[in-house]
Amino acid sequence: MPTKGESTKKMIIDTAAGLFSKKGFKDVSMTDICEATGLSRGGLYRHFSSTSEIFIRLISTEQSFNERIKAKEKAADILKDALSELEKEILDPKRSLSLAIYEFASIDDNRKLFTDLEKKARKKWMDLISYGIETGEFNPVDPEEIAELLLYYYQGIRMWSRVTDIKRKSAKNYSNLILRMLTGEDK
Amino acid sequence: MPTKGESTKKMIIDTAAGLFSKKGFKDVSMTDICEATGLSRGGLYRHFSSTSEIFIRLISTEQSFNERIKAKEKAADILKDALSELEKEILDPKRSLSLAIYEFASIDDNRKLFTDLEKKARKKWMDLISYGIETGEFNPVDPEEIAELLLYYYQGIRMWSRVTDIKRKSAKNYSNLILRMLTGEDK
Repeated sequence: MPTKGESTKKMIIDTAAGLFSKKGFKDVSMTDICEATGLSRGGLYRHFSSTSEIFIRLISTEQSFNERIKAKEKAADILKDALSELEKEILDPKRSLSLAIYEFASIDDNRKLFTDLEKKARKKWMDLISYGIETGEFNPVDPEEIAELLLYYYQGIRMWSRVTDIKRKSAKNYSNLILRMLTGEDK
Repeated sequence: MPTKGESTKKMIIDTAAGLFSKKGFKDVSMTDICEATGLSRGGLYRHFSSTSEIFIRLISTEQSFNERIKAKEKAADILKDALSELEKEILDPKRSLSLAIYEFASIDDNRKLFTDLEKKARKKWMDLISYGIETGEFNPVDPEEIAELLLYYYQGIRMWSRVTDIKRKSAKNYSNLILRMLTGEDK
């Protein structure tokens, strides 16, 4: 079970995520986070010293597929679950952190942080694709090429979802295209 | 030949583009644009009444492929030229307006503007893809699916180019993937 400190931290991060999605990074202050969480200034600063610290924690939580790969689950199942998850995110523009991410990147010099995040995300997808090729479930594609497609296409559609209505069909197009390139089948 | 007023307008838009790329939308003021262009306040306001007006003009200038299609040029040639152009843009992150676009969208209610822009860009690509399918140069893909891939993948890679180093290989991966999906060949 998480300790009280851990659940408070999680609550702060979740609440801040809502603010960052809505207002970007620049316009969210520690005071805003106090108000939204109902914590006192002391209560908040016990856990985090700045909005940057909260934001970094928030964007660094991506899970890899390693456990499911180790458990020898089918690559296609892992892929389909991940694509469903991404589809859901695409259709929930209110939770898009894109604006906040790019504001954050433009204020501080966080190039190294983002380079690491990008590398980690790319590796995560390349691992899954390579695994699926090994088991013979996926077509013999270039894992890096498809990993980039997955990452950048996703990011682009998330960005557009902030400024236009992304239709269910566009979210489906995304996951179907990738599924078809990897397995030859549509969902 | 453009009139003096037209060239001043163009100079203002070009200069402002540099500022918006660097600082986003929120942090650029009319005063900044006066300073960067060397115009007086009166000189600038004669042409534009706000940074919004300049910005809208800037992002609304995309050219369609219609003239080249009417001239019956080869679809593959039009596509290759367009992809080379996009590759160049990807490798020039200093000219990325992504941050400014999303800041602009989050400040004012510009949903309609962006919906129109997206529709226009989507149509432009769908027209080219449909034309190439008609002439038999392109595979019988779903034009809308590939148009979305083109647009969103591009936007995503542009966003990442602001915060990490996008390598020449990633720009090539983008255009090669699209070329291969449409024509079956690599560049």
